[in-house]
Amino acid sequence: MADDQPESGLGRITAFSDGIFAVAMTLLVLSIAVPDLGSAQTDANLQARLVDTIPSILGFVISFVVVGVYWLSHRRLFQSAHDYDRATLYTNLLFLMTICFVPFPTGVLAHYPELTTAVVFYAASMAFAGVTLALLWWVADVRPAHAIERRRVGRYYVVRALGTSLVFVTSIPVALVSVSAARYSWLAIPVFFVIISRIFGRDVLREVT
Amino acid sequence: MADDQPESGLGRITAFSDGIFAVAMTLLVLSIAVPDLGSAQTDANLQARLVDTIPSILGFVISFVVVGVYWLSHRRLFQSAHDYDRATLYTNLLFLMTICFVPFPTGVLAHYPELTTAVVFYAASMAFAGVTLALLWWVADVRPAHAIERRRVGRYYVVRALGTSLVFVTSIPVALVSVSAARYSWLAIPVFFVIISRIFGRDVLREVT
Amino acid sequence: MADDQPESGLGRITAFSDGIFAVAMTLLVLSIAVPDLGSAQTDANLQARLVDTIPSILGFVISFVVVGVYWLSHRRLFQSAHDYDRATLYTNLLFLMTICFVPFPTGVLAHYPELTTAVVFYAASMAFAGVTLALLWWVADVRPAHAIERRRVGRYYVVRALGTSLVFVTSIPVALVSVSAARYSWLAIPVFFVIISRIFGRDVLREVT
Amino acid sequence: MADDQPESGLGRITAFSDGIFAVAMTLLVLSIAVPDLGSAQTDANLQARLVDTIPSILGFVISFVVVGVYWLSHRRLFQSAHDYDRATLYTNLLFLMTICFVPFPTGVLAHYPELTTAVVFYAASMAFAGVTLALLWWVADVRPAHAIERRRVGRYYVVRALGTSLVFVTSIPVALVSVSAARYSWLAIPVFFVIISRIFGRDVLREVT
Repeated sequence: MADDQPESGLGRITAFSDGIFAVAMTLLVLSIAVPDLGSAQTDANLQARLVDTIPSILGFVISFVVVGVYWLSHRRLFQSAHDYDRATLYTNLLFLMTICFVPFPTGVLAHYPELTTAVVFYAASMAFAGVTLALLWWVADVRPAHAIERRRVGRYYVVRALGTSLVFVTSIPVALVSVSAARYSWLAIPVFFVIISRIFGRDVLREVT
Repeated sequence: MADDQPESGLGRITAFSDGIFAVAMTLLVLSIAVPDLGSAQTDANLQARLVDTIPSILGFVISFVVVGVYWLSHRRLFQSAHDYDRATLYTNLLFLMTICFVPFPTGVLAHYPELTTAVVFYAASMAFAGVTLALLWWVADVRPAHAIERRRVGRYYVVRALGTSLVFVTSIPVALVSVSAARYSWLAIPVFFVIISRIFGRDVLREVT
Repeated sequence: MADDQPESGLGRITAFSDGIFAVAMTLLVLSIAVPDLGSAQTDANLQARLVDTIPSILGFVISFVVVGVYWLSHRRLFQSAHDYDRATLYTNLLFLMTICFVPFPTGVLAHYPELTTAVVFYAASMAFAGVTLALLWWVADVRPAHAIERRRVGRYYVVRALGTSLVFVTSIPVALVSVSAARYSWLAIPVFFVIISRIFGRDVLREVT
Repeated sequence: MADDQPESGLGRITAFSDGIFAVAMTLLVLSIAVPDLGSAQTDANLQARLVDTIPSILGFVISFVVVGVYWLSHRRLFQSAHDYDRATLYTNLLFLMTICFVPFPTGVLAHYPELTTAVVFYAASMAFAGVTLALLWWVADVRPAHAIERRRVGRYYVVRALGTSLVFVTSIPVALVSVSAARYSWLAIPVFFVIISRIFGRDVLREVT
């Protein structure tokens, strides 16, 4: 850090964003409650109770993976950013708010994995975060004038974020019929990633993570 | 990081401050408690309980936005700082303490949104943080001799922080009459931002976030 | 941060990883519950209850030390990394997920230190994290072509991570016989470190932490 | 970050340490429990309960200030460090463990501010952290050969950390007589800082924070 530019503005945005991501992802573990065995402190009881936490653990894993993939996208966005404006700053704060919120729907899903309402609330929250990420890519990268090649990378990430949201939104009507089918439908997200990579082609794929 | 200057003192102050901000803003989500359905684990019950968490969610949003705007101000302060002294270091620690404290009044407001005491306690805490931020700007930026143009930016942020505090302080007598009116009055903060931007004029506005 | 390279991709990976490590290690303290004295708020009662927290405190210390040593290994990996690919990024996320998970088995062990199930669950979780760390070293450092000297450092860390896991896996059958013997067996980890340092020899030892 | 030195080892130590400090200091707020009003959700009741949290808030403030001052010392240590060895790395981890631990004794003190045991446990924990900080200064700065001027700065910080511990240790016998006298005695710490600054003289004072 040279004396004439003591603090890169962009550097602090990414450091602050990384901090938010790191804390939000680590707080997810708090949604897995340590079983309270009461007076029956036996191995058989603890084993049964640990088996009961499997849905919570799966919820932790799903949220961690989705937020982790959002982080990869966010990292890629600011890696190519050379400048930013006020709209980017405020949209970034909005996006980070949706990330900070994730531990709450994850906790609801961990407590009530069999209730349609919990699955719908979780899917809606994750979809909202995805739409906000797409908006951030649009505001920070697609909107300003760029070379055509750059624009294709930006569009790839907009489509990827919107597609992730679409999978979550689609799982909402599914959840009204079958809660477990809705949860399994989220596995379509990585499949979707592969499909859009094929559509966007080799030259974009080389630039994305 | 060159060998002859292995660690920028300023860099660690901002990294540490960003960490405090990131953790405090993410901990806000813990003020939204996962509903305990007890034995009535039905969708209707969970829906009703999630509706009950709306005041908590609004409290999370308000605190996140206010602290986020304080972070933008803090970022701007150290972006232009080329040097710092002991008074700045200690005032910064004092300010960060008020930021770390925010999850507590937010939790109180989330639990008792209809009680005047909770609204007053929340408003007083946020006002205190704003006054401390104004003090930090004064100590770190306005107090040392600077070019006149720089001083105008510093004064803008001092006025903005004091103005935010003023809105919160004003909401305290309002809360004695109507709790919800007091909460709505906080929406005056962004309006206030627009007004002082007009007063300070175009040349300052170009430099602030 | 020069204008033509505003953000080092590697820099954000390590900053994000450090954030995850820092939060996960600090959250470990939450596994030590503040004793609830109920109505018997006497010094004798609090002293007895604080003595009861000793197993929790030991669990905190063990997890902190193991995760801290994993961090030293992670730091060393990215210190020598000049480049990284998609496989490294995703393996790193997987490893960080196992680190974020650690507070949960630590909490289970803290609550039920005398139950075989808690010790087995803890040992299995820590072993899984170690295997993932070995995988990360293999993917990021050993797999790409390197000079022979570099490869020896990479192999040292792979063996060290797998060895740590082996100690935890070995403690699982021990726990079926004696819970406390299993916990004491974890003290073999630093002994194991010394042994492999001797095997790998002086030239590697100079490069590792 | 140049290509031939992609990651400063020292940079990651300070970033990781700052993260630990930031999380530990923010977690302190969790020791202030949101009052549970039960069925008596009145303003009078909430006011009374908030008054009851004053000892918790004071505990938060004391821990925040002490850990904040320890952070200033840690920042100063690595600011002047040009190199580090294995002993420094491990001593730093030990010191960070004592920092991560602070929320626990703070929580105990917040719950039972009138019990001698809580005050003694808190004072002993803080004293242990101070001794570890002195050890870290000795290992990382005083022990290696340095110019005489540098050594005086190192000795200043060793004495300051040991002195802070001494105030906490002295408060332990005081607590056996009077709990509140013991807590007030901690106010001697800033007085002690002024005294040793006078003893070490103007040239050292110019270099410390």
